[in-house]
Amino acid sequence: MEIVRRVNAMREISRQVRARGLKVGLVPTMGALHEGHLSLIRGIKEMVDVVVVSVFVNPTQFGPDEDFERFTRDLTGDADQCIACGVDYMFAPEAEEIYPPGPHTHVEVEDLSSRLEGASRVGHFRGVTTVVLKLFEVVRPSVAVFGRKDAQQAVIVQRMVKDLLVGVELLILPTVRDEDGVALSSRNQLLSPEQRVAARVIPSALDTAEDLVKEGERKADVVVRAAHGVLESERLVRVDHVELVDPETLEPLATLEHRALLLIAVYLGECRLIDNATLEVPVEE
Amino acid sequence: MEIVRRVNAMREISRQVRARGLKVGLVPTMGALHEGHLSLIRGIKEMVDVVVVSVFVNPTQFGPDEDFERFTRDLTGDADQCIACGVDYMFAPEAEEIYPPGPHTHVEVEDLSSRLEGASRVGHFRGVTTVVLKLFEVVRPSVAVFGRKDAQQAVIVQRMVKDLLVGVELLILPTVRDEDGVALSSRNQLLSPEQRVAARVIPSALDTAEDLVKEGERKADVVVRAAHGVLESERLVRVDHVELVDPETLEPLATLEHRALLLIAVYLGECRLIDNATLEVPVEE
Repeated sequence: MEIVRRVNAMREISRQVRARGLKVGLVPTMGALHEGHLSLIRGIKEMVDVVVVSVFVNPTQFGPDEDFERFTRDLTGDADQCIACGVDYMFAPEAEEIYPPGPHTHVEVEDLSSRLEGASRVGHFRGVTTVVLKLFEVVRPSVAVFGRKDAQQAVIVQRMVKDLLVGVELLILPTVRDEDGVALSSRNQLLSPEQRVAARVIPSALDTAEDLVKEGERKADVVVRAAHGVLESERLVRVDHVELVDPETLEPLATLEHRALLLIAVYLGECRLIDNATLEVPVEE
Repeated sequence: MEIVRRVNAMREISRQVRARGLKVGLVPTMGALHEGHLSLIRGIKEMVDVVVVSVFVNPTQFGPDEDFERFTRDLTGDADQCIACGVDYMFAPEAEEIYPPGPHTHVEVEDLSSRLEGASRVGHFRGVTTVVLKLFEVVRPSVAVFGRKDAQQAVIVQRMVKDLLVGVELLILPTVRDEDGVALSSRNQLLSPEQRVAARVIPSALDTAEDLVKEGERKADVVVRAAHGVLESERLVRVDHVELVDPETLEPLATLEHRALLLIAVYLGECRLIDNATLEVPVEE
């Protein structure tokens, strides 16, 4: 595996790979790789000839009071995992190359970016779409993979690709969970052992909502309240939001008809965790 | 020459051209082609193997009170001129394909887009950068060409390409003028014969400013006032702005040191015309 630190080098490598008629796959990450990322790498490996994992802690998607400085950086550990997974290139550019000095250009998906996570984290998704487009421009992959764990991010990146006519196929893969059901996240490392145990209420809340819908509940507020109740049963958890929305438009739903996306965001101490589940409404006989 | 109406067809044609190791050049236009556009086509033809001229009257770069509806559309005339110029593909997509229904994604160069033209035409440059990026995504040219006539547009597109790490080389070519010095523009067709004659004060104002600087004037306000005076000598002309700015940052200048961009925008009736000159300050002996 080659570690590529410069934009122009990455661009040229990718150009040469494409010129040989090979397909490039991109796995955009902020490093601190865990089994969730590895599942993305394995998933895309089946679809392409050459896998590029980008490792870039993107400053513009962190708010001023967020954990940009504290975010785990472990390039050596990340490289070892990439090698073990058969990654071809790890692209780990410096921030100065991704954000040249001077006036900035941003890419923003209107409307979708200001809801939910975007309401709690103003500017977050603009930072995400801007950096994802930059990575696409440099690597020019045929396919890029994102995790379902960041559900709103996946919806927004899909919309950006559709709107800007970007010729990249997107692959969205399921959330990977620990044995106790907690979704894998780089931020889990920031939890105390007690907080890590408390985090179990998040998948429990999702399960409770799922069970309710299976049992026939169609009122969104009832489902949301039930999930809320489970989260609040844990004193270490502070709920940021629980929302039931349309999986494409992210508009809040009043009743469940076909399919709905349940989004949860909570604080455990200063650490903000998100999770989600797609609730399938069984077709009536 | 082939006229391509669909995004996917254009994408595939361009992909095949690149796969053969050939370089694609893009000339983005809004149609109503004139000698100014043809000079861009001739200019890029020397640098690439295959020339694509896009013809798309981009709705998002027109304000609500602007001339989107009145803007000249003449696909057959444009095609004839492209054929005569040896263009390989004319890409003339429908608006629905360039702007899919639903929430929109935009690309904006902060700061530079809200000055000057951007102050008079709010949202204009956001529309320009968004559509230019979309055209780049579909055509994926090696080189794209723009005219110096739209000076601020050229500066902003250059900045967008730099910021978003877009792998497209930009070629910026000089303004083409009629014999009486008036810059060619599709909008000139909207002028009455009397207004067309009156438009001659625009290049006169640029010449006056240039002469002043040659004669040693270094105070920006003196140069701007002189140009203003020339424009105001023509009763049909209403001045929108005359500004002397840094050619890269577009910041207003107080004194001329190396090189300055003089930007003029005027109304002739309802028609808004722009022009500009780069004023070179001679190096002191």
